[in-house]
Amino acid sequence: MKQTITEKIFSDHIGRAVKAGEIVDSKIDMVIGNDITTPISIKAFRESGAKKLANPDGFAIVMDHYIPAKDILSANQAKISRDFAYEHDLKNYFDEKDMGIEHALLPEKGLVIPGDVIIGADSHTCTHGALGAFATGMGSTDLAYAMITGKNWFKVPESIKVVFKGKPGEHIYGKDLILEVIRQIGVDGALYKALEFTGESIEFLDMDSRFSLCNMAIEAGGKSGITAADEITKEFLASKNLRDTPKYFYSDDGATYSQILEIDASKLDPVIAYPFLPSNGKSVREAVKDDIAIDQAFIGSCTNGRLSDLRIAANILKGKKVARKTRLIITPATQKIALAAQKEGLMDIFADAGAVVSNPTCGACLGGYMGILGAGERCISTTNRNFVGRMGDRSSEVYLANSAVAAASAITGKITDPRDL
Amino acid sequence: MKQTITEKIFSDHIGRAVKAGEIVDSKIDMVIGNDITTPISIKAFRESGAKKLANPDGFAIVMDHYIPAKDILSANQAKISRDFAYEHDLKNYFDEKDMGIEHALLPEKGLVIPGDVIIGADSHTCTHGALGAFATGMGSTDLAYAMITGKNWFKVPESIKVVFKGKPGEHIYGKDLILEVIRQIGVDGALYKALEFTGESIEFLDMDSRFSLCNMAIEAGGKSGITAADEITKEFLASKNLRDTPKYFYSDDGATYSQILEIDASKLDPVIAYPFLPSNGKSVREAVKDDIAIDQAFIGSCTNGRLSDLRIAANILKGKKVARKTRLIITPATQKIALAAQKEGLMDIFADAGAVVSNPTCGACLGGYMGILGAGERCISTTNRNFVGRMGDRSSEVYLANSAVAAASAITGKITDPRDL
Repeated sequence: MKQTITEKIFSDHIGRAVKAGEIVDSKIDMVIGNDITTPISIKAFRESGAKKLANPDGFAIVMDHYIPAKDILSANQAKISRDFAYEHDLKNYFDEKDMGIEHALLPEKGLVIPGDVIIGADSHTCTHGALGAFATGMGSTDLAYAMITGKNWFKVPESIKVVFKGKPGEHIYGKDLILEVIRQIGVDGALYKALEFTGESIEFLDMDSRFSLCNMAIEAGGKSGITAADEITKEFLASKNLRDTPKYFYSDDGATYSQILEIDASKLDPVIAYPFLPSNGKSVREAVKDDIAIDQAFIGSCTNGRLSDLRIAANILKGKKVARKTRLIITPATQKIALAAQKEGLMDIFADAGAVVSNPTCGACLGGYMGILGAGERCISTTNRNFVGRMGDRSSEVYLANSAVAAASAITGKITDPRDL
Repeated sequence: MKQTITEKIFSDHIGRAVKAGEIVDSKIDMVIGNDITTPISIKAFRESGAKKLANPDGFAIVMDHYIPAKDILSANQAKISRDFAYEHDLKNYFDEKDMGIEHALLPEKGLVIPGDVIIGADSHTCTHGALGAFATGMGSTDLAYAMITGKNWFKVPESIKVVFKGKPGEHIYGKDLILEVIRQIGVDGALYKALEFTGESIEFLDMDSRFSLCNMAIEAGGKSGITAADEITKEFLASKNLRDTPKYFYSDDGATYSQILEIDASKLDPVIAYPFLPSNGKSVREAVKDDIAIDQAFIGSCTNGRLSDLRIAANILKGKKVARKTRLIITPATQKIALAAQKEGLMDIFADAGAVVSNPTCGACLGGYMGILGAGERCISTTNRNFVGRMGDRSSEVYLANSAVAAASAITGKITDPRDL
């Protein structure tokens, strides 16, 4: 039987060859919760009468959305996860002691392994597919089921094969590739499907760009996003203290796909997703013509808050100043990224340019805290969603872009093509 | 006529010798607003029909309380100050571009000059007295009056002379001296009076400690706090790009004081103000005996978020770890302080110890954001107020202390004497 990488990962977990469409009960390698979703899981866990986690080391709680507590509600909510983590002496509990956005932190900690089946009570759990794992978001009660049993059920998803051709041009990153995919297939184009990203362009993407790519699979409705491991993946893994031994799977020639999508990455311009859908992609050239003034630029999130994003931004900001009426907020995705950026002198560049750098947090992306938009304000953002009111007031607007576009736009105060600077 | 330093500053501004108790109309050298108080001043300014500020360069807006915006309300509130700053092309408008807590930022920018009369719509404006200026907090409409006219009225305050004797011992800072003053005279002990801090102990205090000292004059009900300039002051000023030429005033021997308070600083232990008043001071020795477990340690604020505070904390935290069930939040008071701390390697020490470092903000201190306390949680904090619910839930508790005590307590998870580590 010819199989996709996703079918192979499930086959490995089930112990027999499975194919898309089958309902399977699979062992879960890593279960992820955060400060806003875990309390609900904990409630369901307790109500079940369970006393112990099925796999304590395969359960991670990452306090990243409203921590350090933005208000009393957040503080009280956080306490539920804190108490649970202490009670179960969780090894993989991360809070103010080791801040990071879950989808950046877990790979950094070696907790995501190729061949894994991972679920998280956060829609962007699909990010981890960049390491050749099956990873998907689920509800908090589904999480509780896995906390108790170590397993969950899945319909093995059909796959859409996306073939990226050519070498991406200057300032074209994983973010642009995924925004182009979503532009083409729409926000429901991959409903319950695995978006399998392939093609020669992938070889030109560093791991950070691949995380961005898989991160937004959910924005096309995808169950998961995945890129098979290669030398770049292995180099990334070699620097980590891995939770387990990787299992590398690769789709067979002749595997079945529900759709094959070809995109010539060499011909792409940076893509900007206009409000109010990630599928409203346009070329940055068009955005420049539209002369779109911005109040805020935001660089961060599980999509684009990694070290390479900070380097890209610093390269553009060096010796420049943020426009008078624009503010630039930079949120490194993890503490480790923040420290690395300090060592490379990026923080000085940001400060000189007039940016503010925050502690790691999901904060601004979800309208949580740390850069919320007021009435009528407009933001260019490296995040993943631009729905009505996503980052603040219902009348605010979010334009999604890569880190180079966001940095360039901060300098001019309007949406700008970084290749024009 | 024998005069206090405060009477001399007013005499200089009025153009004749004035004495305590007189009602005077004085020119204001610097008017300070922040993101939560300035909008009210702007409303009053506009309602008056005024078009121009009396002294644009003598008006500073510092966006420090809820910025980067913690929520939609904060974002919309911030917009009022932003728009006003752009409309009046304010030179001294500070937001995400140059973050800082107003009472740390303004001296750093050379905007506070010895001999000044300064008002701010923030109660801790008295901080600036540490540079030998008269500085006091006022309401937002009083601020508007000064924005329009460049002046305001004052009753020249009587002074309480505090004489600190001896060399402060290990881990005794300005914070301990002022907590001891407040312990002795109570939270209304200096109502409408200038607290004039004198004595040989002052010579042993760096400027950061003097800012802490004057900062909490208001917590004894003081109209202002003041330390006369000396060589340490002049050295501090020499490193700044000053707004104006300093005028140095000194109290005359034989000047009239409503009270003289002598404190032997050489005999003090670090002081902890227990909930729920800054006047509930006890020796750290007593707190150690009381075995007070803490959920959070906070180092920051206009009281103790300066470089020397970060150095003191880093010295204690180096090679140590924050206790398992305790979180340590460090908020440098300004961007410049944060960068200096990075250069000195303090950020690495904090990260290794398991602390989270935030962007500069008033945040946690006032229960704004960035470290709010949940129900029943207890915090050791370098801030200035420990009223019921000040930093979060009404059932939370705040113990005020210096930065050394806060850092030491973070390591052990309970209130700890740094001299015992």
